[in-house]
Amino acid sequence: MPLIDSANIACGFHGGDPSVMRQTLLLAKQHRVEIGAHVAYPDLQGFGRRSMAMGSQELIDAIQYQISALDGMARSHGTRVSYVKPHGALYNDMLKDEALLKSVMSAVASWYRSLDLVLLATPRDKKAVELGFEYGLSLRFEAFADRGYTRAGHLVPRGKPDALLDLDAAVAQAGDIASGKLRSVKGHKLNIVPDTLCVHGDTPAALEILKAIRTSLQATSD
Amino acid sequence: MPLIDSANIACGFHGGDPSVMRQTLLLAKQHRVEIGAHVAYPDLQGFGRRSMAMGSQELIDAIQYQISALDGMARSHGTRVSYVKPHGALYNDMLKDEALLKSVMSAVASWYRSLDLVLLATPRDKKAVELGFEYGLSLRFEAFADRGYTRAGHLVPRGKPDALLDLDAAVAQAGDIASGKLRSVKGHKLNIVPDTLCVHGDTPAALEILKAIRTSLQATSD
Amino acid sequence: MPLIDSANIACGFHGGDPSVMRQTLLLAKQHRVEIGAHVAYPDLQGFGRRSMAMGSQELIDAIQYQISALDGMARSHGTRVSYVKPHGALYNDMLKDEALLKSVMSAVASWYRSLDLVLLATPRDKKAVELGFEYGLSLRFEAFADRGYTRAGHLVPRGKPDALLDLDAAVAQAGDIASGKLRSVKGHKLNIVPDTLCVHGDTPAALEILKAIRTSLQATSD
Amino acid sequence: MPLIDSANIACGFHGGDPSVMRQTLLLAKQHRVEIGAHVAYPDLQGFGRRSMAMGSQELIDAIQYQISALDGMARSHGTRVSYVKPHGALYNDMLKDEALLKSVMSAVASWYRSLDLVLLATPRDKKAVELGFEYGLSLRFEAFADRGYTRAGHLVPRGKPDALLDLDAAVAQAGDIASGKLRSVKGHKLNIVPDTLCVHGDTPAALEILKAIRTSLQATSD
Repeated sequence: MPLIDSANIACGFHGGDPSVMRQTLLLAKQHRVEIGAHVAYPDLQGFGRRSMAMGSQELIDAIQYQISALDGMARSHGTRVSYVKPHGALYNDMLKDEALLKSVMSAVASWYRSLDLVLLATPRDKKAVELGFEYGLSLRFEAFADRGYTRAGHLVPRGKPDALLDLDAAVAQAGDIASGKLRSVKGHKLNIVPDTLCVHGDTPAALEILKAIRTSLQATSD
Repeated sequence: MPLIDSANIACGFHGGDPSVMRQTLLLAKQHRVEIGAHVAYPDLQGFGRRSMAMGSQELIDAIQYQISALDGMARSHGTRVSYVKPHGALYNDMLKDEALLKSVMSAVASWYRSLDLVLLATPRDKKAVELGFEYGLSLRFEAFADRGYTRAGHLVPRGKPDALLDLDAAVAQAGDIASGKLRSVKGHKLNIVPDTLCVHGDTPAALEILKAIRTSLQATSD
Repeated sequence: MPLIDSANIACGFHGGDPSVMRQTLLLAKQHRVEIGAHVAYPDLQGFGRRSMAMGSQELIDAIQYQISALDGMARSHGTRVSYVKPHGALYNDMLKDEALLKSVMSAVASWYRSLDLVLLATPRDKKAVELGFEYGLSLRFEAFADRGYTRAGHLVPRGKPDALLDLDAAVAQAGDIASGKLRSVKGHKLNIVPDTLCVHGDTPAALEILKAIRTSLQATSD
Repeated sequence: MPLIDSANIACGFHGGDPSVMRQTLLLAKQHRVEIGAHVAYPDLQGFGRRSMAMGSQELIDAIQYQISALDGMARSHGTRVSYVKPHGALYNDMLKDEALLKSVMSAVASWYRSLDLVLLATPRDKKAVELGFEYGLSLRFEAFADRGYTRAGHLVPRGKPDALLDLDAAVAQAGDIASGKLRSVKGHKLNIVPDTLCVHGDTPAALEILKAIRTSLQATSD
């Protein structure tokens, strides 16, 4: 927590439960870390990493339920949710399926308080920017230090080689992202302009990677 | 909905799901019916009718999660939750176990907005009133038209004879409650002072019972 | 139960729970009705009607778990599972995705006792027959009395017009199926050769439809 | 796995899922380790550590479902379940509630194949032995190396001091159990005669504890 600026908290649909959520909220509050609702398909067994065909209204309901649950708990503990970041298969699917992206945007935009939406920074963000404008949403584009990129600027799917980067590669990639020199795992130049940098908390080396990136980026910016 | 003043909406732990919740919220809003969060033990398989031994903090978290989920959805559809009514085993257990009642009260009282708490009107409400005062909670005491009462003024448990009343008995009992003449199924006089009258929506004859009670009480009050 | 020859029993992943399963097993046994394991994606909230992207091995495990649960309970009550029928989205998906069909077949074929597999009878069953032969599986092709058919011989998806047939249309279609004259909702001739006829138990008019079909088919065969 | 003789496998109600179950089954098979069905209350959120008030028949159904699911998967992978060991709250509750113990025994005894039942070895096993005889069940009494004991010979509940023993204490207690010198955490002599010794797999030091106990007991028996 001391190493990050914002924390994505699972809302019980792919992970987390009310008590884990409270503990994480309190930890985030203590370290003055921004809180994001990490919303997902209803898939505890598969940790939200399985694509599910949900109707648009069903998905909107599921997303608003999750944001609401986390935010109401947060407010009861003196903090609040600032943004929404879809998780796992939902996060990836909405990049490829415009109707799905619209449903996600509609869910966040029609939630009763204004929240930002986090999505993957890719070389082709123009469409998302337009849609975000249409829905009156503030978007945050995100880059990943610890994941390999495809030529299209998407993440290499888990289970494939190069999907997860090791410590050194992640530190190097964080630097490349910061200096606008990100490349795909095959070496293609990727022109992305991210607002936020993500490191997965469930990678065993997460903490070391975070520390090394902090140190490295600090050194560069000094 | 046109027949009732307040609707208890399940929040996904014993029944309901985000889409059912939205549909019911909209229906309640349309009929200007007050909305209650029907919070329960996490027990979908048993419809919340199985007692569960949860730690106090765990229970508080589970209750706040459920209220939050429903209220956030409600507010995104232009309405809001007014009160909390525990469901099933939780509702019954908190009458018998003061520590549990305190946990429920603490959950509602520490939620970030002020909500009423509904509990069973019994001949011995004094303790609950004192605790409610201590927690700064506004309580609503409830009577049941369609359920038999024990000598102690509790509901006859489901599965036992006389647990569920038929149409005529329910109408008669609604009248008895309104006129302060409620008796247990064995005929003991029960001295209760309820604020609200409940009819279960999952009884097959629920609608007929509601209509008949409305007609009957209306006639009496004219 | 007296009206049917085989009953598909949900195994807890899209519906059902251990007690409902026991009750249905006992009812089936009493009426000497064959028992099928109605296996599904793990999706209680969506009643198994949402497609889910599961890995092949994950799906095989999920199917074998469900068959096992039902069959072990069946055998403890003096009966047993005879066949497997995928439910909802899984049933439809496996018609369109050969890799998925292979996973389903592999799950049934590698289960420890020999079971039949039920799938939709379509005009193009040749591929399924070949695969069934390859996996050493006995297949049962199924037709639906109460569902409209597309030109390709698939079911019209729920939610679209003509997806569900009413009583008269279902009786007529049952007759057409029996006499080889089935047509799509748009009137295209569909050449299918089914082994079994299905009526959904969750349609409100299911019982009437069943009775009318029984009477009608009986009259025809006399 | 190489260090143990029998492995309790969660069946999806408090932990585990079909794929985790398959992986653990295969590992157990490879190391020729006996397989036990670790059956529990339906409580994924609470990891089966919350007591739940289930009706006797409901509980029997839930237990038979879990045994069946695991055994059917086991048999499809060339192995089988040998015994049943209740988990968490169910394991503890059945020691204190004879009606519950009878339900558990009935569930195992009426399952379609003969399985042993594992329960805690206490100074007062006579009643359990009688009931086991009545139900025609073969019982295995179990002692815990890594858990503190109360004066009554039950486990000190999790969350209390001395509930979990560290490496040295666990090795010492394993020796005491083997030589009939077990004492409660307060020093009372406990006269138990166990058939099997348990070490929890979810303790961080589980592996070290296991190795040390193996070494120590080996040395003693040489």
